[in-house]
Amino acid sequence: MMRATRAAAFGAAAIMLMPAAGHADGKETIEYRQHIMKTLNEQSAALGQILSTTIPGDNTAAHLEAIALAASLALKAFEAKAPGGEAKPEVWSNWADFSKRMNDFSRKTAEMAKISREQGTDAALANVVDALSCKGCHDVYRAEKK
Amino acid sequence: MMRATRAAAFGAAAIMLMPAAGHADGKETIEYRQHIMKTLNEQSAALGQILSTTIPGDNTAAHLEAIALAASLALKAFEAKAPGGEAKPEVWSNWADFSKRMNDFSRKTAEMAKISREQGTDAALANVVDALSCKGCHDVYRAEKK
Repeated sequence: MMRATRAAAFGAAAIMLMPAAGHADGKETIEYRQHIMKTLNEQSAALGQILSTTIPGDNTAAHLEAIALAASLALKAFEAKAPGGEAKPEVWSNWADFSKRMNDFSRKTAEMAKISREQGTDAALANVVDALSCKGCHDVYRAEKK
Repeated sequence: MMRATRAAAFGAAAIMLMPAAGHADGKETIEYRQHIMKTLNEQSAALGQILSTTIPGDNTAAHLEAIALAASLALKAFEAKAPGGEAKPEVWSNWADFSKRMNDFSRKTAEMAKISREQGTDAALANVVDALSCKGCHDVYRAEKK
């Protein structure tokens, strides 16, 4: 109940609070994973602006951390089988491949963030193309809605 | 040049790579801060789903970390005076107030993430309404485009 009370008072304008249901239904599960994937989208886009040198690279390390953090949540957000959104049914019918790719993504982005902390962002960015292989997975598992 | 080469090879489908310009123009600066604010939006919305108990709270700590990380970048992303997007001109004409609020936001979300690490998420969430006072700032400084 404490959580529901906090939620009601939670003033972030962006938040679409739903009635407390006690469990996730399909729609909520889809929305939740979309929050994770959109975070990755925004953070990758910010990093892309830095890589293309249109934005100074002062925050590169923070973006790499944010990407690694969101990537660590991504697979888990698909574990509940809730078809819909932009996820193709192959996410669940090819789960072994999908989960391997997502685990690789999480591992590689975590490694990149670690290199950034220990050796600096230039060293970390040597891995960026390999670590952020978003397109390879999206081509197979995402039906993008324009 | 190395960065530009990496950027060209960077396969994330979401990224709109611009020609390497060497500096941010107004449009790029606006897009960059929108990536930060949209990250906050998505992560707050995910946390809101957890607070309303429609999504299990397993990832609460990670969301608090992601919010603190993005909040730490938010003020800096507005430092360049680039009116447009959803930012009202008051962001820059009331900079002392705006920057104080944004610094408070960064400090409070960092504190919440720290409490989460040291005392657990339940202790951290006692501060969530105060730390994520998004609406108070948006009401004054944001002209939301529907």
